[in-house]
Amino acid sequence: MLYEINEKAIQLENQGKRIIKFNLGDPDLPTPPEIVEAAYNAMKQGKTKYSSAAGEKKLREELARIHGVSLDNVVVTTGSKWAIFSLMFLLLRKGENVVVPSPHWTSYELGAKKVGAELRFLKRNLESDWKVEPKNLEALIDDKTRLLILNSPNNPTSKVIDDKTFGEIVSIAKSKGVKILSDEVYSDISFVKAKSILDFGEDNILVNGFSKSFLMTGWRIGYAIVEKELAKRMIKLNQITTTCVPAFIQYGALKGLESRKKIADDIRRQYKLRADAAYSVLSKSKMQFSRPDAPFYLFPKVEGLDSERFALDLLDRGVAVAPGTAFGDYREYFRIALTVGENKIREGLGKLCEALP
Amino acid sequence: MLYEINEKAIQLENQGKRIIKFNLGDPDLPTPPEIVEAAYNAMKQGKTKYSSAAGEKKLREELARIHGVSLDNVVVTTGSKWAIFSLMFLLLRKGENVVVPSPHWTSYELGAKKVGAELRFLKRNLESDWKVEPKNLEALIDDKTRLLILNSPNNPTSKVIDDKTFGEIVSIAKSKGVKILSDEVYSDISFVKAKSILDFGEDNILVNGFSKSFLMTGWRIGYAIVEKELAKRMIKLNQITTTCVPAFIQYGALKGLESRKKIADDIRRQYKLRADAAYSVLSKSKMQFSRPDAPFYLFPKVEGLDSERFALDLLDRGVAVAPGTAFGDYREYFRIALTVGENKIREGLGKLCEALP
Repeated sequence: MLYEINEKAIQLENQGKRIIKFNLGDPDLPTPPEIVEAAYNAMKQGKTKYSSAAGEKKLREELARIHGVSLDNVVVTTGSKWAIFSLMFLLLRKGENVVVPSPHWTSYELGAKKVGAELRFLKRNLESDWKVEPKNLEALIDDKTRLLILNSPNNPTSKVIDDKTFGEIVSIAKSKGVKILSDEVYSDISFVKAKSILDFGEDNILVNGFSKSFLMTGWRIGYAIVEKELAKRMIKLNQITTTCVPAFIQYGALKGLESRKKIADDIRRQYKLRADAAYSVLSKSKMQFSRPDAPFYLFPKVEGLDSERFALDLLDRGVAVAPGTAFGDYREYFRIALTVGENKIREGLGKLCEALP
Repeated sequence: MLYEINEKAIQLENQGKRIIKFNLGDPDLPTPPEIVEAAYNAMKQGKTKYSSAAGEKKLREELARIHGVSLDNVVVTTGSKWAIFSLMFLLLRKGENVVVPSPHWTSYELGAKKVGAELRFLKRNLESDWKVEPKNLEALIDDKTRLLILNSPNNPTSKVIDDKTFGEIVSIAKSKGVKILSDEVYSDISFVKAKSILDFGEDNILVNGFSKSFLMTGWRIGYAIVEKELAKRMIKLNQITTTCVPAFIQYGALKGLESRKKIADDIRRQYKLRADAAYSVLSKSKMQFSRPDAPFYLFPKVEGLDSERFALDLLDRGVAVAPGTAFGDYREYFRIALTVGENKIREGLGKLCEALP
């Protein structure tokens, strides 16, 4: 229902209606101008031809350096979403399954279903502050489990898995022979330090992107860090599907990496202010929610709420949110993406509180 | 072996060796500057956010107008290759098959195999000027055939299917209930007029791209014209895989469409000169080949040649070509892409003639 809400929001906007959009994880902040200029310069220098399906060497080298891996472990992809889908396509067969802590990003579920795999969700709850319980995770794994997807900081809860739990999960996966795909797209801008899967060796898979931490959502560039043989398979799949990420986009991303810390610090600071503003408005309401560890989301609960109906009704009041059902079995919840300015946050959340049943 | 030759050519270049590259269909001509500027302006105007998985409305409208279809029939894709792969992914199941006249573009074969479908090639030959014989095509179709792929003008032969034959093939496919996927990426710049699948109604699938006819190979933008229900399925698949083509790239492409005729005329004129130059050099050799109907390729035959060995040996002389085995069962053939300037064509083809066994 995530996409339906968005399509309806766009329709209403096209009819001239003003909508405060909390429904998408697409930051309002512009792509840093140095990235735009670097991409433009690359275009003018003729970086407009087919390029390597693995990614531009310079970008891969820089990513390898940042993550402490070798060039052969890095595959540049058409967004982190394509990295995830292509890994599912390559690693999962019909009858096999993938274990995912829920609530979860919609695309894991849709992607896995599309390649014919079964999904097994570890249901977490707000009451335990969204903790991933390793023992419960272990109970879901069987001999048909091929992947365990972690996403810390998490979309939609904005919670980070604590270091001890992360380590326990890695041990369990290892002992069961299951690969972890760790989607860390919110890590660089997290309010609290988040562990990376690479902190636990190189057996597993890191997926990351430039969308969130470099404000490049619409540029479609991400990457995976994987063992060399799997990297080769991903590159071959790129060759027959997406071919390559446009080279000029890769040079834009490379420029971004030069100011990686500064850009991330700026984003973090702005989103911390927004999170605090939202927190102060929502604290006065009857909603239950946990304090976010990272941008961009809040995932509040209202007892007895039908969030799909609520989201549709709320659109008529000029506010778009994503119903909790888009992230698993969470009908009483909805996701607020703080991807608008502070004034709009106060206005939109005010309207939202008024609309609560 | 297409990709292996290219990787080796790049390696040699990195070692400082000069290679005349006839091996890829990547024109040396730069992307027209008005396209680059339009993309840059769109970036600066903030067209850097997530956009519709169907494509930007303005671009779809213009493509719909050009092809005389409705907006709902148009899906913008991450290159025409992604359109083709995603259609195969959506339409083909294990045990089903796809019929393709051969020699054929490598990606049809690799894509179909990747989704588990069987390939049935209609073997054509130089002696009959690469004619697609409808009766022979019909004989390959059975109740497990889901797609028939046409590619006119064709890569690697540069031959256009004549109007009468095209009509007969459409009738056969219709009577057998098989959908045609018509890849027309070379149509706009063809030396001779080529029929479009849309000239025969809207039951089938047109795939086209901006790579060849707008010199935008590395930009990764193409599109499909399909019936509405299939368009919806493609859009849903985009949502969970590539998300969207960067909006600023779409505005670059839209600018290109404004000067569509002029850009195509320029490309056609330059490539006609190159084709004539190549023709005159090769006519003096013992190679057999047919006159190209379109850019960019020649597909000559040398009796008894092992083109894989020949292509590897030729690399050491500083010339890269693609062995015929990359396009089907054509070991005695190789593909020359005329994607370098006239002087280099004469020099490279001279070396090539010297190297012939």
